[in-house]
Amino acid sequence: MPLMSPDAAGQRYQLFSATAMPQATAFLWNKSMLVQLNCRGYATAQFMQPEPAKYAHAPNLEAKTFMQPEQPYYAHHPGRFVYVKDQDSGELWSVPYEPVRKPTASFVFSAGAADICWQLELSDDLRLEWRLTLAPDAPLELWQLRVRNLGTATRRLSLYPYFPVGYMSWMNQGGRYEPALQAVVCSSVTPYQKYPDYFKQKDFKDQTFLLAERAPLAWEANQQQFEGEGGLAAPDGISATMLSNGCADYETPACALQYDVVLSPGATELYRFVFGPARDQAEIAAIRQRFFGPAISAATDGFTAAVQAYRAQQAAITPAIQISTPDSGLDNFVNQWLPRQVYYHGDVNRLTTDPQTRNYLQDHMGMTYLAPDVARTALLTALSQQHQSGEMPDGVLLHMDAQLKYINQVPHTDQCVWLPLFLRAYLDETNDWALLDEQVGYKEVEADASTVTEHLHRAMAWLWQKKDARGLSYIEQGDWCDPMNMVGYKGRGVSGWLSLAAAYALNTWADLCENRGEIQSENRGEIEQAADYRAKAAAFNQAVNSYLWDGQWYGRGITDDDVVFGISKDPEGRIYLNPQSWALLSGAASPAQQQALLQAVDAQLQTPYGVQMLAPAYTAMRDDVGRVTQKFPGSAENGSVYNHAAAFYLYALYQVGEADRAFQVLRQMLPSDDEAEQRQRGQLPVFLPNYYRGAFSQYPRTAGRSSQLLNTGTVHWVYRCLIEQLFGLKGEGKGLRIAPQLPAHWPQATVTRRFRGAVIECSFSRQAGINASQVYLQNQLLSDNLLPEIQSGRIYRLRVLLPL
Amino acid sequence: MPLMSPDAAGQRYQLFSATAMPQATAFLWNKSMLVQLNCRGYATAQFMQPEPAKYAHAPNLEAKTFMQPEQPYYAHHPGRFVYVKDQDSGELWSVPYEPVRKPTASFVFSAGAADICWQLELSDDLRLEWRLTLAPDAPLELWQLRVRNLGTATRRLSLYPYFPVGYMSWMNQGGRYEPALQAVVCSSVTPYQKYPDYFKQKDFKDQTFLLAERAPLAWEANQQQFEGEGGLAAPDGISATMLSNGCADYETPACALQYDVVLSPGATELYRFVFGPARDQAEIAAIRQRFFGPAISAATDGFTAAVQAYRAQQAAITPAIQISTPDSGLDNFVNQWLPRQVYYHGDVNRLTTDPQTRNYLQDHMGMTYLAPDVARTALLTALSQQHQSGEMPDGVLLHMDAQLKYINQVPHTDQCVWLPLFLRAYLDETNDWALLDEQVGYKEVEADASTVTEHLHRAMAWLWQKKDARGLSYIEQGDWCDPMNMVGYKGRGVSGWLSLAAAYALNTWADLCENRGEIQSENRGEIEQAADYRAKAAAFNQAVNSYLWDGQWYGRGITDDDVVFGISKDPEGRIYLNPQSWALLSGAASPAQQQALLQAVDAQLQTPYGVQMLAPAYTAMRDDVGRVTQKFPGSAENGSVYNHAAAFYLYALYQVGEADRAFQVLRQMLPSDDEAEQRQRGQLPVFLPNYYRGAFSQYPRTAGRSSQLLNTGTVHWVYRCLIEQLFGLKGEGKGLRIAPQLPAHWPQATVTRRFRGAVIECSFSRQAGINASQVYLQNQLLSDNLLPEIQSGRIYRLRVLLPL
Repeated sequence: MPLMSPDAAGQRYQLFSATAMPQATAFLWNKSMLVQLNCRGYATAQFMQPEPAKYAHAPNLEAKTFMQPEQPYYAHHPGRFVYVKDQDSGELWSVPYEPVRKPTASFVFSAGAADICWQLELSDDLRLEWRLTLAPDAPLELWQLRVRNLGTATRRLSLYPYFPVGYMSWMNQGGRYEPALQAVVCSSVTPYQKYPDYFKQKDFKDQTFLLAERAPLAWEANQQQFEGEGGLAAPDGISATMLSNGCADYETPACALQYDVVLSPGATELYRFVFGPARDQAEIAAIRQRFFGPAISAATDGFTAAVQAYRAQQAAITPAIQISTPDSGLDNFVNQWLPRQVYYHGDVNRLTTDPQTRNYLQDHMGMTYLAPDVARTALLTALSQQHQSGEMPDGVLLHMDAQLKYINQVPHTDQCVWLPLFLRAYLDETNDWALLDEQVGYKEVEADASTVTEHLHRAMAWLWQKKDARGLSYIEQGDWCDPMNMVGYKGRGVSGWLSLAAAYALNTWADLCENRGEIQSENRGEIEQAADYRAKAAAFNQAVNSYLWDGQWYGRGITDDDVVFGISKDPEGRIYLNPQSWALLSGAASPAQQQALLQAVDAQLQTPYGVQMLAPAYTAMRDDVGRVTQKFPGSAENGSVYNHAAAFYLYALYQVGEADRAFQVLRQMLPSDDEAEQRQRGQLPVFLPNYYRGAFSQYPRTAGRSSQLLNTGTVHWVYRCLIEQLFGLKGEGKGLRIAPQLPAHWPQATVTRRFRGAVIECSFSRQAGINASQVYLQNQLLSDNLLPEIQSGRIYRLRVLLPL
Repeated sequence: MPLMSPDAAGQRYQLFSATAMPQATAFLWNKSMLVQLNCRGYATAQFMQPEPAKYAHAPNLEAKTFMQPEQPYYAHHPGRFVYVKDQDSGELWSVPYEPVRKPTASFVFSAGAADICWQLELSDDLRLEWRLTLAPDAPLELWQLRVRNLGTATRRLSLYPYFPVGYMSWMNQGGRYEPALQAVVCSSVTPYQKYPDYFKQKDFKDQTFLLAERAPLAWEANQQQFEGEGGLAAPDGISATMLSNGCADYETPACALQYDVVLSPGATELYRFVFGPARDQAEIAAIRQRFFGPAISAATDGFTAAVQAYRAQQAAITPAIQISTPDSGLDNFVNQWLPRQVYYHGDVNRLTTDPQTRNYLQDHMGMTYLAPDVARTALLTALSQQHQSGEMPDGVLLHMDAQLKYINQVPHTDQCVWLPLFLRAYLDETNDWALLDEQVGYKEVEADASTVTEHLHRAMAWLWQKKDARGLSYIEQGDWCDPMNMVGYKGRGVSGWLSLAAAYALNTWADLCENRGEIQSENRGEIEQAADYRAKAAAFNQAVNSYLWDGQWYGRGITDDDVVFGISKDPEGRIYLNPQSWALLSGAASPAQQQALLQAVDAQLQTPYGVQMLAPAYTAMRDDVGRVTQKFPGSAENGSVYNHAAAFYLYALYQVGEADRAFQVLRQMLPSDDEAEQRQRGQLPVFLPNYYRGAFSQYPRTAGRSSQLLNTGTVHWVYRCLIEQLFGLKGEGKGLRIAPQLPAHWPQATVTRRFRGAVIECSFSRQAGINASQVYLQNQLLSDNLLPEIQSGRIYRLRVLLPL
C-alpha cells in the first residue's frame, strides 16, 4: 500500500498515515478566509477584517514585554478534534489523531477541492468521517461528523467535539455555552492601548463560536477545566461521565461538547457544526438560522445548501488545460490542484490588504489563464498606484484602510519589471489590446490620468533611469530577493539580476509595442519606440556582460563597496540561480555562455529535490549582502530549492529550447513515486510549496523538506510554462501557436485547452521521419503551426506530430 | 499537614502540592534578569539587552501575518525539567511535576530569598533536589540536581535534564551539542526586516545554552526528535536506551542531556548546570571556565562562589523593620518577603528601559527605606527629564537607546503628583534636605539647570494650571488609571481622583516647604509659598466637593460630554475606591463625608479577598470612560482587588486613624490560614500580586484568584504603612516620631527599626489606665513621643505603652 495517492476518480488526494508526514497539509479558502489543516488535525486559519485575524489562537502570547503568569501555560496548538470514548470499555481515541495519538485501524487524510476529510476506522467495526467545508461567502467552517457502527454489536459511545480557541486576549477573554444558540461562544477584546484603535477595532469579530445542530448532552467552555491533570491525551473532562458545563471567566476558553450515542449494528449518526468568528451573539443567531433553521426545501437545508454552493464555487474554476500524459502524478497535479492554487492567489491576494507589487502582478499573471477579467482589474488597480515618475510602489493597497506594512516599508527596485511580463501573458491569452488604451490615474491624485501604454512607458523609463554609471540597476534595499537588503543600502550597490530583468522587461515591452503597431495601424509609431527599448535592453545586457560575467556564470551584483558577489571566488553564495535564468531570458548570454552557465547550474545548484537558489548556502552574516545570509542555511532565500526561482529557470529553459532540462526542473517540484522521497519532502502534491529545504551538501538530513507554505509566485510561472511551453499552446494576436516541448521520453500526450472561449483538444504523438512538428486540424496541416481565427464556443481537434 | 507554610527558620516558604495551586510562583532576579518559576516547573524569564528579551521561548509565534506551517505545532511552555527513568522498572517521573505529571511520594516547592528549589521523594527511597540560583552579575541560571538513594537496594537510573528552548526565530534557529563546551547550544537570529535593526541587534545574545559540569552520556538538541510520538509525557527519546545525539537545523531546538547512574544505598550524586543566553560560543566558553574551570580554592569553585555571591547580594538587602506580632503569617511576609519585593522594584525598575514615571517614583519611594542613595539618584534622573513647563514625561528613559513605548505613548496627566509624595517619604526617612538644593537640568537641553525645589514648584504649577473652568484636573487620555483613556480624549473631561491627588500633592509640597523653612532659616520664604499651595489645594478640594460629591461618596470624574460617572445612578462602575481614599488624604472629605464614604466602601467594595477598585465591574464598553471598561469584569483595573489602589486606601485609612479598618485591608492582601482561601487565591505569600480577581458578586467562582504578577506599586505603600503607621515609627526633621496604630486585637508586638544608621528596638504592649500611648527610652518618658537627635550606630530600646 502506498503512503499516499489520488483516489480512483483522481479528484481527491489521500494520505494513509498520520505519522509518516506529520506536517502534511491541505487547505481551503473563500473570499474572506483561509484554513490550512495538517493531517493530524492541527489548523491554522485566518480571516480578513480587513487585516488578517485569527479566531483560534496559539496557546500563549509570545510578547517581549508582557508577562501573563496568571494565564495557564498550556499545551497545544489550535486544531479541530473529536474525542471518542467507548462507554463500555473506556477506550479513548481522538479524531483525527491528535491529541490522544492513538493509532487507528485505518487512517485516510483526504484533500478535496472543496473539502478536507478524514476517514478513519477506529477499530474494525467503528467508522468515522470528519469533514470540513467552508461557507461560500463568510469565514465559517462547516464540520460534519459521521459515525457508523460496522459491527454486529451495539456500541455505546460518547463523542466530544473539541475546538480549542486558545489564549484570545490579555484584555478580556471568556467563554460559555449559550443554550439559545446551541453554541459555545468564546468572547474577547482585541488588545490595544491607543484610543483611536478602539474605533478601528470595535466592529471586529472578537467572538469565536462552535455552533451545533444537535443539542449536546453537556459542554465545557473552560480549557483548563476540560483538560485537568489528565492532560490533553486523557482530559479529566472526558474521564468523567459528563462534561462539567463550565465556563471560562478571564480564563482560556475552549469549545467542547458531549454527545452520548447508542449505535445499533449498521446504524449511522451525523453531527454538524459551524465554527468561526462573529461580532456578537446576534450574528451567531443569524448564522444558526441560516445553517440550522427551517429547511430550504424538502431536499435541502441551509447547511447542505452552503456545502453545495461552496463546491459549486470551486468547481467553477475552469482550468486552462486538462492533460493526460505518461506521468499520472503530473496529470493529477496539473488537472486538479495547480489551477486551484493559481486561482487562490488571484482570488484573495494571499489574504493581505497590501500585497507586494511583484507578487500581485505575478499572481494576476496566473489569473490571466483562469479569470482574465480579474487579472485585468488587478493591473489597473496596480497602475492607479504608480507614481508619476513611473516608479511602482512596493505594495498595492486593496482596502481603503490598508497601509504598507512590514516588508513593504523597505524600498525595492524591481517592481516595474513585472508590468510588461504581466501584459505579455495577458495579451497573448486574451488579445485584449484595448486594455492598453484604458485611462488610469496616478498615486499623485493631482496628476492627470493617462493610458496604460503611457504608464508602461513611464515604468520603463524609471527602470532605465535607476542605474549607475556602469549601466547597472541600483538595488537599494532589495530587488526580487527581499532580504538582499544590504548590497545597496548606502545607495551605490547594484543588482545583476535586476539589470537582466530590466533588459528582459524592456525587450518584452518592445515586443508588445511592435505587436501593437502591427495589429493596430493607428499605433504604428510604437514600432519605432520599440527599437529604442531594444537598444536600452542591449545596453543593460552589455553592462552585465562587462561587469558580472565571471567566466562560467553571471555574478549576482556589486555591493556598495564595489565588491562583485555571487562569483567563483566566494566561498558561500558562489552562484545564484536568478542571474543565470534571466540572462537566458534577456538575451545577455551568448550560446557559449548559455552552455557554460547551464553546466554550472547543473554542477552546483542541482539536487534531487530541485534546483537551489544559491550555493553554498551562507552560514554567517555577510553584511554587504544582507539579511538573506542570516537565514538558516538551506531555508527560504538562503539556498533552498526556492520554487519561485526554480520556476523562472524553468521558463528560461523553455525559452532556449532546453526541454529535457526544463522537464526535470518541473518534475522535481513534485514528489516522485519513491516513498522515501515522499517522506523526506513530507507534503502532499496538492500545492507547490514556497520552497523545499536546500543546502543539500551542507544539510543532507533536512534537504528536500517542504516549507508547507502555499503562498508562492511559483505556480503562475509553472502554469504558464505548462500551457505555453511544455504543451506549446500559446496565444498570440493571430490565434494559437502550437510549439510543444515535450520531454524526449514522452511518446504521446493529450491536452484539452480552453482558449478565448474555444476548446482545443490536442493530441500529441511522435512520428518517425519528420524533422519538425506538424499540426493538423481535421487532417488539414496548419501553416506555421498556427491555429488562426479562433471562434468562441467552437471545439477544435488538433493532431500534433512530433519528431521522434 | 498544611498546604503551605514557612520552613522552621522562617526563611523559606514552602508549598506541598503541585496540583492545589498550579499557578503558584516564586521569583529570582539580578540586575540583568528575572525568572519566575511556577510550582510545576514552568518558567518565564527575561533579560535585558537593553530591552527585555527571552532566551527560552513560548512554543509558537502568535503573529497575525506570518504563517509558519513548516514549524512543528508543539506543545509546552518553557520550563526546567528533569526526567528520571528507573532503568530496571522502566518507571518514569519528571521533576518537578511537568511534563509527566506523575505524583511523587512527597513534594515541596520551596521559595528562598536567593534560590528556589523542589525537594521530592519520587518513591519512598529516592530523593531529589532541584535547585535554581542566579549568577550575581549576569543573566545566568545556576541549576543543581542532587539525587540520593535512601533505600537499601542499588538503583540504576537515567537522568535527563530537559530545558526546552522553544521556537526561537523564523529567520534562523538550530541547536547542537558542542563537545568542547559540554553544552547544548541553540542559536538563532532575532527576526527583523529593516537594515538599521541589524546594527541594533547584531550583538544580541541570540544563543541559548545548557552547560553541564559533567559530560553527558548522550544528548538531544532537536525538540521534535526528543518528543516523538510519545509526547512530552513519555518522550520517544527517553523510551529509547540512549538519546540520539541529534541536532536541530531550522527546527525547534531543545536542550536535553542524559546521565546514567548507578546509585548504591545511601549514595548521593550532584549534577550542576548553567542555562542562559550568550552572544557566541566564545562567551559560553568563558562561562564554562568561570563556573566549571579550575577551583578557586580548595574550599570553593566558580559555581559555588557564584551561588554564595548571589546569596550574599540578597542578604545585603537590609529590611527597615523586623517584626514579631501575634500574626506569624504577617511577620514572615514582612520580615522575609516584602522588603525583597520592594527592593526588586527599585533595583531593576521592572526590567524596562522606560518605566512609567509614576511607577518609577513610587518604586523609589519604597527604595527610600532600603537604599536611599538609589532613591535619591532616581529622583534626580526623573527630574532631569521634566519639561521646563513643569510637565513630567509619561516614562523615564533609563538607557541611551531607550524610547517611550506602549502605554508611555499615551498622554497621562498625573505624573507630577508623585514628586512631592516621593519627597515626603524620602525626607522623613533621610532628613537629606540638601537634595532640594541639587541642580538638575530639563528635557529641553538648552534650558538652564535649576534646583530640585524649583523643579517641584514648576511641577506644582503645571498641576494647578491643567484644570478646567470648574477647577477640576483634565484627564486627557488617563491618570493613574492607564486604561481610563476616553473620559477626556476630546480635551474636556476631568478626573475627580486627579483633582484630589493634585490637592494632596500641593498640600504635601506645602508641608515640605514649611518644614524646610522651619529647618533652614535661609529658606523661611518657603513658608509663605506654602500658604499659597494650601489655598490651591483647598480650591481643588472645593471643586471636587461642588461637582463630584454624590451624597454618599465621591464620583470618579466628568466626561468630555459633561457626564459625571462613578456615582449612584451608574449601574456599573457605580463607586470607585481611589476618589474615596484620596479625599481622605487631601482633606476634601468632612468628618461626615468620611463616615459616609467609609460605609459606602464597606458596603460596595469590600470582599473576603480585599477591597475592590470599583464596583460593579463593567461588563460592556462604556466609550465615554474607555478601555478599562473593556477589561474582563473583575480583572485588573476593572474591579479587581487591585492592590495598588487598596494600598492607597490603606495609607489613607491610617491618615484618618482608622487603624482596624486599615489592618483588615492590609491583612487581606495576604492569604489567611484557611486552606480553601489559600487555594482560591492560588499564590504563595512571597510577594504581593498586582491584583486578586474581584467582581466578587458577579463572578464568585474566580474572585480572589491571584494575578501572579509581581510588578506592582502596592508594596511601597504597604511597607511605608507598616513602618510609619501600623508601627508608627516615622522619621521627621527632629528625629523619630512614635505613633503606632496597632489593631485593637493585638496585645503586643516588637519591632526592630533601622533608621538613619541607628537601630531602634521597640516593644509595644497594652496598658490599662492610660488614654494615650507613652514611649519610654530606658524608662525615660519621651516628650511628644519623639525620639530626638538620633545617632548613627547607636541602638535605642523603646518601650511603648498603648491604651487597652
